[in-house]
Amino acid sequence: MKLASATLMLSAARVEAERLGVIVCVSVVDAAGYPVAFLRMDGLALGCIDVCIKKARTAALFHMDSADFARVACPGGGAYSLELTNGGLTSFGGGLAVRDRNGVVVGGIGVSGASTEDDIAIGLVGLAALS
Amino acid sequence: MKLASATLMLSAARVEAERLGVIVCVSVVDAAGYPVAFLRMDGLALGCIDVCIKKARTAALFHMDSADFARVACPGGGAYSLELTNGGLTSFGGGLAVRDRNGVVVGGIGVSGASTEDDIAIGLVGLAALS
Amino acid sequence: MKLASATLMLSAARVEAERLGVIVCVSVVDAAGYPVAFLRMDGLALGCIDVCIKKARTAALFHMDSADFARVACPGGGAYSLELTNGGLTSFGGGLAVRDRNGVVVGGIGVSGASTEDDIAIGLVGLAALS
Amino acid sequence: MKLASATLMLSAARVEAERLGVIVCVSVVDAAGYPVAFLRMDGLALGCIDVCIKKARTAALFHMDSADFARVACPGGGAYSLELTNGGLTSFGGGLAVRDRNGVVVGGIGVSGASTEDDIAIGLVGLAALS
Repeated sequence: MKLASATLMLSAARVEAERLGVIVCVSVVDAAGYPVAFLRMDGLALGCIDVCIKKARTAALFHMDSADFARVACPGGGAYSLELTNGGLTSFGGGLAVRDRNGVVVGGIGVSGASTEDDIAIGLVGLAALS
Repeated sequence: MKLASATLMLSAARVEAERLGVIVCVSVVDAAGYPVAFLRMDGLALGCIDVCIKKARTAALFHMDSADFARVACPGGGAYSLELTNGGLTSFGGGLAVRDRNGVVVGGIGVSGASTEDDIAIGLVGLAALS
Repeated sequence: MKLASATLMLSAARVEAERLGVIVCVSVVDAAGYPVAFLRMDGLALGCIDVCIKKARTAALFHMDSADFARVACPGGGAYSLELTNGGLTSFGGGLAVRDRNGVVVGGIGVSGASTEDDIAIGLVGLAALS
Repeated sequence: MKLASATLMLSAARVEAERLGVIVCVSVVDAAGYPVAFLRMDGLALGCIDVCIKKARTAALFHMDSADFARVACPGGGAYSLELTNGGLTSFGGGLAVRDRNGVVVGGIGVSGASTEDDIAIGLVGLAALS
């Protein structure tokens, strides 16, 4: 995950958040879950920072969007306690796996601060900026 | 969050706890979740200390009362695992966001030791001392 | 919690475990949850050690048996996430509050390794050794 | 748990994973839960590493397969919060206790990366390599 790519994603996500009129933070991590770039909009509830980083990490470390991760990593989901591994993961939407042209996961993007639906929509706009 | 404000809140909360005949601890934190002031009444179950601090942090970090946070941050609530972020948050009542005259969150107050209902009532009395 | 008291409790609990033909570990902690004495019987599954210590801490820190704690500190129990505070607590039976003649909590005893029912029974025998 | 035994298990498990066409990691730990040997196949989702180690630890520390552990260590299972002890355990299948000829637990093997069903099947092939 190049910084140039991460920056593109952050910018696109921010524009979308402003268009929707919501305040979010956005994190982009590499394939190992380490942060590449991050931004938070003014007025954000500070607890969302850790959330968006964990969403991005979840997607990168498990090669799946956090909304899909949530279906199994919860009580009764078949893999309950998975969400407790790797220092704590996120079992709801807003984390998206970032893939290269060959489908290989190269990182993740996480959005937090708005409704889960909007967080996901903003993340998708970030992803689209790469293609 | 000024110490003078926090002290006012603690005093009012304590008086209310004594009036109700319950033993609680009360924590006031700033907008970033850092402690400003704390008190524990004699005889408190010591486990409640960490609880009231986490309640106050939860409210401050997510700009909402912990009772509202509890509705989403639980299994089946739509944002399950949110309660595991930020070093561990509290998904039940007794943490209240403290706002200034413009509605901006400036901190949180957390109460623990009595029933959740009483903890909330005591926190509200603390909040009221500011206005 | 005096060491002499803790030792009495451990000895009685061990005798009861042997009578029941089960292998357990037993922990006694003071009112602040710090260990006073501990024993583990040969052949114990090592994961039980942390469990019995946490059971004793839970009882001491919240002035209630861990079986009662379990009723509220679980998903849907009204105080979900309470079990995540204080470094991790135990939401099932086998931890018992130790009280002095005036009913004041002076510590806790925790038993793990057998069925929850037997763990509780063994803990009660430990408690009885004090009176 | 000798390294020679652990290596045998890893090799057999890897062959089975390749036969099934899945990408997994495998961890073998000793009776105290400490790692003896580990491998990860190319292309693994990195989050699985911590998972397979925790599966192996869970089996070794509680003398039972993690699929059995999962039945009690979950909300409503009778020992909810057990999965939070010992630094975090795994409440789903793929961790298997390793026993010597006398039935004494000498360690655990954990597999992660495929479906839980396949993870278990691969672990069983690893176990079989010892007999």
